[in-house]
Amino acid sequence: MGKFITIGERIHCISPVIRAAMESMDPEPILKRAQEQLAAGADYLEVNIGPAEKNGPELMSWAVKLLQENCDNVPLCLDTANKKAIEAGIAVYNPVKGKPIINSADAGDRMSFIDLAAANGAICIALCASHGVPADNDERMAYCQKMLERGMELGMEAEDLWFDPLFLVVKGMQDKQFEMLEFIRQLRDMGFNSTGGLSNVSNMMPKNIRPIMDSAMVAMAIGNGLTSAIVNPCDRRLMETIKSADIIMNNSLYADSYLEI
Amino acid sequence: MGKFITIGERIHCISPVIRAAMESMDPEPILKRAQEQLAAGADYLEVNIGPAEKNGPELMSWAVKLLQENCDNVPLCLDTANKKAIEAGIAVYNPVKGKPIINSADAGDRMSFIDLAAANGAICIALCASHGVPADNDERMAYCQKMLERGMELGMEAEDLWFDPLFLVVKGMQDKQFEMLEFIRQLRDMGFNSTGGLSNVSNMMPKNIRPIMDSAMVAMAIGNGLTSAIVNPCDRRLMETIKSADIIMNNSLYADSYLEI
Repeated sequence: MGKFITIGERIHCISPVIRAAMESMDPEPILKRAQEQLAAGADYLEVNIGPAEKNGPELMSWAVKLLQENCDNVPLCLDTANKKAIEAGIAVYNPVKGKPIINSADAGDRMSFIDLAAANGAICIALCASHGVPADNDERMAYCQKMLERGMELGMEAEDLWFDPLFLVVKGMQDKQFEMLEFIRQLRDMGFNSTGGLSNVSNMMPKNIRPIMDSAMVAMAIGNGLTSAIVNPCDRRLMETIKSADIIMNNSLYADSYLEI
Repeated sequence: MGKFITIGERIHCISPVIRAAMESMDPEPILKRAQEQLAAGADYLEVNIGPAEKNGPELMSWAVKLLQENCDNVPLCLDTANKKAIEAGIAVYNPVKGKPIINSADAGDRMSFIDLAAANGAICIALCASHGVPADNDERMAYCQKMLERGMELGMEAEDLWFDPLFLVVKGMQDKQFEMLEFIRQLRDMGFNSTGGLSNVSNMMPKNIRPIMDSAMVAMAIGNGLTSAIVNPCDRRLMETIKSADIIMNNSLYADSYLEI
């Protein structure tokens, strides 16, 4: 397995600062968050512009150019329900540091995001869900197969589908966590790449607990073969845990300075 | 799976303070370490008196009485190569809070420690090794079966054999970690209890890294079904990780205050 890939989650329109910057197309707050996340070790940056029904294409292409021109062509993960915005973002995207990632397809209404990825040479996050939370891993696997077939038909490489097991909130769905982790292992055993929104796990928990819970979960998930996650890279404990898990899995080589690399 | 069981490692003759206290039978340093570990959440306390060839029985029975009388009959894990010392310790042991644990049998010269456990109603840590590090998991499993048969022949319950996969130092045996983790999963799938000396993993690493590496490892090991470990319970990060992993595995129930429990 290669080194675990982190996708920084912090350029997200749910944040008031970022929302305001996106509305006024103000570069500063966005570049600040980009630089913080890259300094903390993020491999990819996510750009989440929300539904962006009005000016999606304009906004996404602006954000992609802004980030890549100022951050050495950082590879990006484009997140919006607006397909035209994703197309516009990819049209100006420079893949020299890595293919763009589209977040996300699912096995329901968003199946066609796979087509979008196939047509644009992109990686596609493929959420193993359709309507709501899958009942069990058989259902997750059925969705996975369905999306895999679609991608294959369209000429995608299997490695460009990053299957998302759907991380669930512990507070409320505690008894579903183990099964989700087992699904990650099934994906690993089939040789698939995987990713997901890790922070969901600790949603609604006290602020001081979130890094602790997220870290425990990411170690367990990497142990089961998770290859990537959408995370807060500015969470130091989490990044330390990811680097340590990569050492244990032999994905990166141990040196006494490994936390500083 | 039940709540993960922590065995506090800090009453160990390798520590100069404890060694001196054991030599002079001075209660204070030993009780201090006991109370610190119990306050930090240790379930069991290990008492490691080393080879103790001279006064093993006397020393172990003194230590067992000292700890149980002053710490509300805390359950203990007795660690020495001196079988007479273990017998003497168990002779004065009060099992009201849990059976004594003998640390440890192996599939080589220390096979007869299983007999000792069987004869004394004790739990036995059974190291899945014979001479040196097992070459692979087939060898580990062969040792496991051998010790299981011995225990069964002597009327032990399988649940009283806690199989130890042999945690290996990352610095030097990085490429062996994943296989060791897979062995824990094999033990889990067979319904066995498991334990081991977790701190081996981070041996020889810089002091600031050890809690980080140990925490990543314990989360991955619990994810694979490890049921216990011999740990430093005063390592706050480690204990937070263990409690969080127990939540994720649904071994204990989530509450916002779970780290304080």
